[in-house]
Amino acid sequence: MKVVHYSEPTARQFESEVVRGVSGRVLIGREDGADHFCMRLFELAAGGFTPRHRHDWEHEVFVHAGAGQVYRDGTWVAVAAGHAVFVPANEEHQFRNTGSEPLRFVCLIPAGPPEL
Amino acid sequence: MKVVHYSEPTARQFESEVVRGVSGRVLIGREDGADHFCMRLFELAAGGFTPRHRHDWEHEVFVHAGAGQVYRDGTWVAVAAGHAVFVPANEEHQFRNTGSEPLRFVCLIPAGPPEL
Repeated sequence: MKVVHYSEPTARQFESEVVRGVSGRVLIGREDGADHFCMRLFELAAGGFTPRHRHDWEHEVFVHAGAGQVYRDGTWVAVAAGHAVFVPANEEHQFRNTGSEPLRFVCLIPAGPPEL
Repeated sequence: MKVVHYSEPTARQFESEVVRGVSGRVLIGREDGADHFCMRLFELAAGGFTPRHRHDWEHEVFVHAGAGQVYRDGTWVAVAAGHAVFVPANEEHQFRNTGSEPLRFVCLIPAGPPEL
């Protein structure tokens, strides 16, 4: 059994034209023997956003802290601590932080795609 | 895309000789088209605990709120908001709330076993 605080794993920073102020960590993954799905934690700084994209695997997201929005079908939907979001495979999506505090959410994906 | 607050789905209460003060909700499951893994949210009241058991599927847990302990190999390990726990298949485990506030965590399982 692995017990880890989200802040412990080394964070990977994402910063480019399409992504701003995002750090990602693998909390539970293949290295731990998790063969079916992988838990990552993403933190978006104030003003940060993930890329708007789609891919052929799903996301299961749970918002741990902060407040933001998720892009769904041409509009933005408010999310905050305590919200779950299911993004089906091949559906366009994007997250952004609309608050002044970090937006933190776990985002799980099936085994197969890159873990981070 | 489904966006839902954890408090929205109907809760199932668990109360018996081996489980106390536990409610469970499916946040993302088969009904939503989640074919690979399922997200549930469990809430343990103060003094509450889940059964001590093992089964042939894994858990990926993220603690959203509160403070408690997880049983691991004969001892109790402290967990609190922000901790992730990976329980491999067939490993004995149990969660208990050691605080005065509700302990809330998401617990994900692979598709196959009952969702709740």
